[in-house]
Amino acid sequence: MRIDLNADLGEGYGPFTLGDDAALLDIVTSANVACGFHAGDPAIMVETARAARARGVAIGAHPGFDDLRGFGRRVIRATPDEIEADVAYQIGALQACAALAGHRVTHVKAHGALANLSNADDNVARAIARAVRGVDASLVVVAMPGLPAERAAEAAGLRVVREIYADRAYAEDGQLAPRNQPGAVLTDAADIADRTRRMVEEGAIVTLSGRRIPVAVDTVCVHGDDPHAVDIARAVRRSLEEAGCIVAPFAP
Amino acid sequence: MRIDLNADLGEGYGPFTLGDDAALLDIVTSANVACGFHAGDPAIMVETARAARARGVAIGAHPGFDDLRGFGRRVIRATPDEIEADVAYQIGALQACAALAGHRVTHVKAHGALANLSNADDNVARAIARAVRGVDASLVVVAMPGLPAERAAEAAGLRVVREIYADRAYAEDGQLAPRNQPGAVLTDAADIADRTRRMVEEGAIVTLSGRRIPVAVDTVCVHGDDPHAVDIARAVRRSLEEAGCIVAPFAP
Amino acid sequence: MRIDLNADLGEGYGPFTLGDDAALLDIVTSANVACGFHAGDPAIMVETARAARARGVAIGAHPGFDDLRGFGRRVIRATPDEIEADVAYQIGALQACAALAGHRVTHVKAHGALANLSNADDNVARAIARAVRGVDASLVVVAMPGLPAERAAEAAGLRVVREIYADRAYAEDGQLAPRNQPGAVLTDAADIADRTRRMVEEGAIVTLSGRRIPVAVDTVCVHGDDPHAVDIARAVRRSLEEAGCIVAPFAP
Amino acid sequence: MRIDLNADLGEGYGPFTLGDDAALLDIVTSANVACGFHAGDPAIMVETARAARARGVAIGAHPGFDDLRGFGRRVIRATPDEIEADVAYQIGALQACAALAGHRVTHVKAHGALANLSNADDNVARAIARAVRGVDASLVVVAMPGLPAERAAEAAGLRVVREIYADRAYAEDGQLAPRNQPGAVLTDAADIADRTRRMVEEGAIVTLSGRRIPVAVDTVCVHGDDPHAVDIARAVRRSLEEAGCIVAPFAP
Repeated sequence: MRIDLNADLGEGYGPFTLGDDAALLDIVTSANVACGFHAGDPAIMVETARAARARGVAIGAHPGFDDLRGFGRRVIRATPDEIEADVAYQIGALQACAALAGHRVTHVKAHGALANLSNADDNVARAIARAVRGVDASLVVVAMPGLPAERAAEAAGLRVVREIYADRAYAEDGQLAPRNQPGAVLTDAADIADRTRRMVEEGAIVTLSGRRIPVAVDTVCVHGDDPHAVDIARAVRRSLEEAGCIVAPFAP
Repeated sequence: MRIDLNADLGEGYGPFTLGDDAALLDIVTSANVACGFHAGDPAIMVETARAARARGVAIGAHPGFDDLRGFGRRVIRATPDEIEADVAYQIGALQACAALAGHRVTHVKAHGALANLSNADDNVARAIARAVRGVDASLVVVAMPGLPAERAAEAAGLRVVREIYADRAYAEDGQLAPRNQPGAVLTDAADIADRTRRMVEEGAIVTLSGRRIPVAVDTVCVHGDDPHAVDIARAVRRSLEEAGCIVAPFAP
Repeated sequence: MRIDLNADLGEGYGPFTLGDDAALLDIVTSANVACGFHAGDPAIMVETARAARARGVAIGAHPGFDDLRGFGRRVIRATPDEIEADVAYQIGALQACAALAGHRVTHVKAHGALANLSNADDNVARAIARAVRGVDASLVVVAMPGLPAERAAEAAGLRVVREIYADRAYAEDGQLAPRNQPGAVLTDAADIADRTRRMVEEGAIVTLSGRRIPVAVDTVCVHGDDPHAVDIARAVRRSLEEAGCIVAPFAP
Repeated sequence: MRIDLNADLGEGYGPFTLGDDAALLDIVTSANVACGFHAGDPAIMVETARAARARGVAIGAHPGFDDLRGFGRRVIRATPDEIEADVAYQIGALQACAALAGHRVTHVKAHGALANLSNADDNVARAIARAVRGVDASLVVVAMPGLPAERAAEAAGLRVVREIYADRAYAEDGQLAPRNQPGAVLTDAADIADRTRRMVEEGAIVTLSGRRIPVAVDTVCVHGDDPHAVDIARAVRRSLEEAGCIVAPFAP
């Protein structure tokens, strides 16, 4: 069984840094690179692409709302046309930065509030799908299974890979439980690794009530901005490898 | 004789507009599109690319310093690596926006203080050339003849087209006379049109002292942000056509 | 009867301008000055304060969301603490710019989506009131009558002046009818002037259905960004003066 | 002998942090608070003012160029009028944020490239002095002794306190040696502490060649963004106290 491990990287800005990119690049197989709107700047994007290439890590665009101060975690009620243009802009910007680094963008994954909104509003989901297809129809879209963003990408004829979150609890509808709900964010590395392995082996999301929602899991998202992010990512990878998974990028 | 007419377009931001893009698109043959740093936002970039395509106008990236408030007219002392990344970022962003509009970016022309700096500092000129080549070596670079930006682009193996400015006086070294110098900016449409025609016919820049600097003129830049910009552009085009020039994009 | 006429001014940014401030300053008696978040920059704020002072026009802070591209018309879901800090920041910034111009800030009026949100969410209304009181408890708050922002300002012990909108239709609950509703925005200068005069004379808001909601009207808001803004503002002022009103600032 | 110890604080932005403010606030007696241009946002400014007040630390505005990505370390060639307005804006913004926190701004110290420029260009020095005096003539200006910024502040009738840098080498003209010069930045805590004590005791700056430039030292600047910043600051304070200095704010 083959599985990808992805994390958000390149989330600094100018002199500011967030997360331990170097350590994570030794663990994950795909990196979602911030594109200058909620984090990232061109120089950091080039650097991140270069570092990913050196370690054989695939890269994807991680477009978000244009809100550095809110780190893209606050919804901005833009129109679908604005969102389509903004997502295209960010993908193209990363493609060019990757070219400078001798790397190539192979996937797209929406960030933060934009990702959440795309799973709550079909118009947003479709705007993102149009942007991806318009820029490069061979880009793979990373999406949570069973939700609007996945459907919109499929309807647009794009290849979709399904992801689960290693450290987040799931509500009964398959959405992530809101961060402010008790138990929504898991923090123990061993727990997280066990749970991830189980979901991958069973091919199912486990909700807070224990219910199974069957899904084909292609990639597991580990977070980069937790103080123990690196330990958690390492534990998840080890656990998947012990289960016999081949941890490798989904991208061709 | 074939000549291109270029202008800076898409210089709005959000609710703010600058210049009469619709009118200029009926006159020029190439548009330099702001890429979100000194002006322009993704939605405006898509719109501008769409409008240009509808009128058969070629588009190019018009990268500038990341300084909306200063409209890219204030030098920011970034490092060559930052400039390389910033220029690549802006080119890629426009390529993606153009793709949404069914158009294609065929040239690059630096804006404002970045353009001036590239003609005063070889490291900056080379950084820009590296960015263009790294993103797409088939992009044409628009440059003033005889100056560092032209040399750096040629040395990088890029195709260069030479431009003259319709409404700006030239110093003895072939640089533009500084805006604050009396007579540096011409404002009479008939004068501007006559002078441009002469420079194109003679194949020479005329300096303030009247000296001729022979150049192969490929494109003439008309400005978009003057109150009489449209009248001037129209006069320049008519004058070139009367001289027997075929006014057409340089881009293939 | 004494009435104030207010408009939003100083809404440019760097090279970008919006509205005809010079003309409006000859008509209105209070100016709501953008503070750099949704529009305005420090140099424009100093200039606007100086021009207002020269014409005896009172000035107020016009804080909005930090969203230049969206002109503060898109809600950003900030926390009440962030909103409190942001509003205080903007008031203080204008106070300092006004000081350079020899003028003084005497009122505060929330802008765009922040104003709308303050009338839909008591926590936002209270955050704004706390900011005003914290910075300077003698500042007057401009608010629509009968809505949460007014109540929060009163509860905070602030002086409130009630405003009506000259060119906007009212829903049955006294809120502005949404801009996208037919008839929500009036455009005929004579109509607007008549309707405003009637509301001031009757001391009542007239809703879309014709119902009267009695209010003590202290100030009338005219808009600055409409192409006919100046004509409308002049017609409103003339109509109020013909009705015997003394058009003068509410601020002491 | 009485001496102040100052550091730059509140240099985060949104989710990004820089330096260990909590630790430094237990050591320094004055904090230079970033005002949202090169770092800092309104919520962080309120928080920083609140934390400073709780520990009896005086606060000052730390205005810089509007360049978050460059952290205010890149010169932007703004006009003196723009600089005057920008500095006033930032001071006022901090005054308001401080008011929310129950604290009061008592000094102003320019940041980074703006500070350097003010010591190289009299027009910039005077623009800053005009801004301070225009906003509040009782604000104290922190300046390096013997340079243009000090002279401009004195000429404007402002109270000036002189500062030395604990960890920076001095060129023969009393300016800081450029960061990229070998030996320009000291890193050993014991060395830094000894050298600072000597400069304070002798009342003289020691240049790279060992020359003494007599100055009345009122405050010592320690940096906050070095990995060993807290250790260095602690060593400097201990060393000054051992020398019999009373470490206390200069502000009344």
